[in-house]
Amino acid sequence: MEQRTLTTAVKAHVGERVRVAGWLHSLRQMGGLNFLVIRDGWGLVQAVAEHAEEIAPLIEGKLSVESVIAIEGLVVSEAQAPGGAELHDISIEIITPVEEPPPIPLNKHKISANISTLLDQAVIMNRHPTRRAIFRLAAGMMESFRSTLTTRGFTEIQTPKIVAAATESGASTFKLDYFGQPAYLAQSPQFYKQIMVGVFERVFEVGPVFRAESHDTVRHLNEYVSLDVEMGFIENHLTIMALLRDVIASILNAFDEHYSNELALLKVQMPAVPVQIPDIHFADAQELILKLHGVDVRGEPDLSPQDERWLGEWVQREFGSDFLYVTGYPMRKRPFYTHPDPARPGYSNSFDLLFRGTELVTGGQRLHRYEDYVASLEKAQLPLEPFASYLEAFKYGMPPHGGFAIGSERLLMQLIGAPNVRLTTLFPRAVNRLTP
Amino acid sequence: MEQRTLTTAVKAHVGERVRVAGWLHSLRQMGGLNFLVIRDGWGLVQAVAEHAEEIAPLIEGKLSVESVIAIEGLVVSEAQAPGGAELHDISIEIITPVEEPPPIPLNKHKISANISTLLDQAVIMNRHPTRRAIFRLAAGMMESFRSTLTTRGFTEIQTPKIVAAATESGASTFKLDYFGQPAYLAQSPQFYKQIMVGVFERVFEVGPVFRAESHDTVRHLNEYVSLDVEMGFIENHLTIMALLRDVIASILNAFDEHYSNELALLKVQMPAVPVQIPDIHFADAQELILKLHGVDVRGEPDLSPQDERWLGEWVQREFGSDFLYVTGYPMRKRPFYTHPDPARPGYSNSFDLLFRGTELVTGGQRLHRYEDYVASLEKAQLPLEPFASYLEAFKYGMPPHGGFAIGSERLLMQLIGAPNVRLTTLFPRAVNRLTP
Repeated sequence: MEQRTLTTAVKAHVGERVRVAGWLHSLRQMGGLNFLVIRDGWGLVQAVAEHAEEIAPLIEGKLSVESVIAIEGLVVSEAQAPGGAELHDISIEIITPVEEPPPIPLNKHKISANISTLLDQAVIMNRHPTRRAIFRLAAGMMESFRSTLTTRGFTEIQTPKIVAAATESGASTFKLDYFGQPAYLAQSPQFYKQIMVGVFERVFEVGPVFRAESHDTVRHLNEYVSLDVEMGFIENHLTIMALLRDVIASILNAFDEHYSNELALLKVQMPAVPVQIPDIHFADAQELILKLHGVDVRGEPDLSPQDERWLGEWVQREFGSDFLYVTGYPMRKRPFYTHPDPARPGYSNSFDLLFRGTELVTGGQRLHRYEDYVASLEKAQLPLEPFASYLEAFKYGMPPHGGFAIGSERLLMQLIGAPNVRLTTLFPRAVNRLTP
Repeated sequence: MEQRTLTTAVKAHVGERVRVAGWLHSLRQMGGLNFLVIRDGWGLVQAVAEHAEEIAPLIEGKLSVESVIAIEGLVVSEAQAPGGAELHDISIEIITPVEEPPPIPLNKHKISANISTLLDQAVIMNRHPTRRAIFRLAAGMMESFRSTLTTRGFTEIQTPKIVAAATESGASTFKLDYFGQPAYLAQSPQFYKQIMVGVFERVFEVGPVFRAESHDTVRHLNEYVSLDVEMGFIENHLTIMALLRDVIASILNAFDEHYSNELALLKVQMPAVPVQIPDIHFADAQELILKLHGVDVRGEPDLSPQDERWLGEWVQREFGSDFLYVTGYPMRKRPFYTHPDPARPGYSNSFDLLFRGTELVTGGQRLHRYEDYVASLEKAQLPLEPFASYLEAFKYGMPPHGGFAIGSERLLMQLIGAPNVRLTTLFPRAVNRLTP
């Protein structure tokens, strides 16, 4: 009887004796019966003790929930029990005794503490079934992201996180001392993934990025996991938008197929991804806002959160879609590597993907000719020297290319409707949060 | 004819006209014939131009190799050509002209520059077919690692890389300023992956780790990608050794099955992984060295590189194995969380995996009882406070557990026999190397 049965497999052994192991999730005494719930890495299983001596090892040791134990018992079918079966006629082995109950109750369905307290207690809180559901979805998201891209000929890469120069702008990078030289934590793998288009054409990376921004909002993390994609030999940004659509659809399909328990536990309203996500040009979006809401935002270089919400309502009403592409953002608000729209050079071949009225992903076509980079950097009054090795890639031949970056925690936050992005990462880093 | 055919698919279109796109890898003129090779993200294809006017766009533009072009032509079977087919009767479209040849010739089989020059030119050098083969193997290694573990119920996690306290020892961490607080770059996800055993039992992470060591050897990187595994409810370190054996075997199987071209190009001598990797206790290994080589290393707390080479020769001779587990390293050289051997408390339940006489992976069983951590930290004269949130995990119940960490670049270096670990990472970071 040393062989262990996982909680998720107990149901398959009705009529047999099995041994489960895990944490004592709860212990309730009702009338003469004792109900124990064991939690292992995958699920919960209930055990029923009719006789006080069956649970004597717990009672005599004054043991608390979260004690690590093994229970051996007879599997009995029971529709009311989690997983549809429970253990009877049990014997308990104590593996690691715990005497003090945890600071956050893990066996209540709803976690009632405020977010700050919860995050302080993340080490224990992440054992809660709803927390585990979130991080299982996170793992499923990565797996689906990778398999979708690998199937399409993309190669996964790892690029350095300690870099010699800030990528996007100097203001919001973490600086460190690299053996006496100044160095920075990478704000994105942007330059490296573009360089790698010269090697493999199609690349992706899943890795941490670091932003030293001091915004302390529900949407900001100072370290997050970016899902980065870059692809060569594209027609223009529309090629990238089609790819992103398929990536998002694959993630949602994976959730539907493999994570229905998690979605149910988290009460997620799953969106549908249209085969063709509706799109609207930035300039047309501003005209639409004037027409529908009487607010003239024409001439603004970007959309405000209110503008995005209005566009989200509009695309829901007109197309029944949770998703909307806004294309052609003005060049002057986009980074120097952005490719202009050849037909309207003030606008770019870039896009944002809005989900339920909030920006979810940014992407677009990049410049690919060396002389365009030199001109663009000069126009932005940036020196060439810090970009020297990046520019080598263009000097020696690059195809038209583009890509996007998904903030994995934001995507998860928006899909599951979490109130704060910090709840979608195991051990978040924010301005005032460096532990646990 | 806008539809593009990848080089790897050309052979399937013998007798048809196709359009390939990529980089001009080489152009040779022999007699009246012009041989062009195009390189795309996946392979090479040859095109033959019988008439000067077919290659006029290249000649008239004085274009160099690495120009990005498309070639349309008739597919003809040709056993001598790469991929077994070539294009005839071609027309060329210039996508991105390049006029200056690259600083490193990409169309010679052997890259002849010294390592330092090569690494300076990594942006271009990584386009070389042998370099691409290395990074395809790296991607295949990650994919196999993930799928082996996911199949066994492991959950992939992402843990923070900016941390409040150094993990292993204070001396070799990169320090940074985190909004006015001191912070460090994670030297390993050790504490977090152990904490996560309390959540999912079985976890793994693929992510960067940072070591501020000033060693400038062929085996050192200051940033590398660590393949970390941690597993709960183990018997002891033998459970972990069996898992690691299967992980390594899966990676090698994946190479054999899906990367035979890359292995051939890199002339890799693939090892076989025994079903049961031979193992020897640390103390017995020292006795063996005395017996075989007359060198008395008994009492030394660790094995020297020479000791490891001798053990590698021995296991090859005695068992025909490239792999050897050395178990039971003395507790005094292992970190504070190491679990002692209950039968011989001066020795640990830890192991090193040697491959061809060099250490490849370190792992073992960890302490899992709170009081053991308190005692161990006190014995190591370490304060408890910096470990407070880590210790919470043990206070509230942890099962026997253990794990290992594979340095992905080192594994690749040793498998392919690269002379320097920096050649197995895209853009290496070393003491004197922060770019590209």
